[in-house]
Amino acid sequence: MTTEIQRVAVLGAGSWGTTFAKVLADAGRDVVLWARRPEIAEAITESRCNPEYLPDVELPPLEATTIAAVALEGADAVVLALPSQTLRHNLSAWRTLLPPGRTLVSLAKGVELGTLERMSEVIAEVAEVPSDHVAVLSGPNLSREIALGEPTATVIACRDHDRAVALQHACMTGYFRSYTNTDVVGCELGGAGKNVIALAVGMAAGMGLGDNSRASLITRGLAEVSRLGVVLGADPLTFAGLAGLGDLVATCSSPLSRNRTFGERLGRGETLAEAEAANHGQVAEGVKSCQSICQLGRRHGVELPISDAVRRVCHEGLPVPALAKELISRAPRPE
Amino acid sequence: MTTEIQRVAVLGAGSWGTTFAKVLADAGRDVVLWARRPEIAEAITESRCNPEYLPDVELPPLEATTIAAVALEGADAVVLALPSQTLRHNLSAWRTLLPPGRTLVSLAKGVELGTLERMSEVIAEVAEVPSDHVAVLSGPNLSREIALGEPTATVIACRDHDRAVALQHACMTGYFRSYTNTDVVGCELGGAGKNVIALAVGMAAGMGLGDNSRASLITRGLAEVSRLGVVLGADPLTFAGLAGLGDLVATCSSPLSRNRTFGERLGRGETLAEAEAANHGQVAEGVKSCQSICQLGRRHGVELPISDAVRRVCHEGLPVPALAKELISRAPRPE
Repeated sequence: MTTEIQRVAVLGAGSWGTTFAKVLADAGRDVVLWARRPEIAEAITESRCNPEYLPDVELPPLEATTIAAVALEGADAVVLALPSQTLRHNLSAWRTLLPPGRTLVSLAKGVELGTLERMSEVIAEVAEVPSDHVAVLSGPNLSREIALGEPTATVIACRDHDRAVALQHACMTGYFRSYTNTDVVGCELGGAGKNVIALAVGMAAGMGLGDNSRASLITRGLAEVSRLGVVLGADPLTFAGLAGLGDLVATCSSPLSRNRTFGERLGRGETLAEAEAANHGQVAEGVKSCQSICQLGRRHGVELPISDAVRRVCHEGLPVPALAKELISRAPRPE
Repeated sequence: MTTEIQRVAVLGAGSWGTTFAKVLADAGRDVVLWARRPEIAEAITESRCNPEYLPDVELPPLEATTIAAVALEGADAVVLALPSQTLRHNLSAWRTLLPPGRTLVSLAKGVELGTLERMSEVIAEVAEVPSDHVAVLSGPNLSREIALGEPTATVIACRDHDRAVALQHACMTGYFRSYTNTDVVGCELGGAGKNVIALAVGMAAGMGLGDNSRASLITRGLAEVSRLGVVLGADPLTFAGLAGLGDLVATCSSPLSRNRTFGERLGRGETLAEAEAANHGQVAEGVKSCQSICQLGRRHGVELPISDAVRRVCHEGLPVPALAKELISRAPRPE
């Protein structure tokens, strides 16, 4: 069923889409990158540079276009590098252009507001393909470090193991190492949940709390995301791996992480609007996902104390110091 | 069998022993702290300060002594805050002074060279007490942060749950929150293994590798420590908790961690002797434990690739860049 992947369409030229296009090109694939804005597509094709997201990184030869049909024509695999809350809208417009039978790969991390669907569910539904045609890529993958060629490991998850292996070979380079997994639910929940926990860790850092508190938040945060994932059918071991713990630790450690930085601003006392203004006018992904993740928790009867505290800070005006209380003030008990 | 704990002997006035004595005193216990050096004992009693390890922290009223018999007289619990490789020697000298039936609490993290025993095993053997009289305390506990009153969580593990609960109550303060656990093996392995993984993470940082690589090392490192622990009888969930993941992340994130800092020096190209000189003339704990942990792995047929790479760097002259290769150059495979 699966063919070798040579030509790849990457839809979305943000920092992660551009970086993964570079990985694929460095691995010897023919890559066509779709960008929404003509000036970005032009700069990538002509100057081998994405001036907006990776200004100081020289890209390998890549074709870039603003016409999705050009990118998708003859593609052996399609990579969706779009924000999670706009993925459905974009993909709907491209549905008839998608090459039949090919693997669709999600780079987005989030749970859709309203539907509470994971990104692979949105993709299968909108593209009208079986769920085992959809793969997700997740792990400790700060895009800037990968763009600079630093050694990085990732997880490619697909219910169809052969498709995951074909993708693994398609992006294998000296600095980018991928592991396959069939637990799509776990990888997606790990990726979506970590943005929310990174907000909490950022808030703690912004309040001046130290590494003990942050490590506790990471630990208890991963535990609650894992509890939710298991109820949704994930393998608990996925959360102990690169797409769970690995992604969470990288995101929570790095000054490059938008969610962590956003949380830090809130922790220092900035308002949501101020933090948004400092982040190119956008809220961090976790600010949206905390709502859908908490709704999923309520629907399935899973307690998510840290995610819920983040949600109340972001959407109900809970003062940030109340988060620290959540961490320390409950009754003594077994772990 | 267990009595309420009011008087506590803390044996060892290094930074962690002194800090935990402060926690106990802040929680309302009567604490007597044993220090090896008279000038330290004097400063603690008279100036409420440990000039060597916590010069800028004001201690609560504490009695300090250099006479172990004075510290141990009438103690309801005994806390052992001694380096793991000298614990046996010290405790042997005090064996006849130990108050019978009381809980002995280990703060040390390591696996004894030669015997390959965990600290709780050394204590039970030397003190000639049943193993359920021995408790261990472990978690994301950078002592300096705790000494400054930052909110911190920890795990108190004892096979006798009632003893763990009595200790939990004895050290409960506004900033120090403890959880009980009966998995002593898991808590000890998590604590010992993390020092070795922190060395590896430090080496990666010293080489200039970024957060992706470090998060991968933390993830794969915890996985190998967990595999070893499970073979030795630990509960795998312990490694996902505060004494596993939590302790590891705090240690690997903090510039206060001696193991991480030691590894960083090696990663920048310093020799073991140079790193030792910069660390008060001592090697970091993980430099010793990597040998005993790798021996345990061989004895039980558990592969520990990261710990073994650390061992080869520290004891066989493997160049540090070879560690990065360990991370990236193996054959593609499932996670």
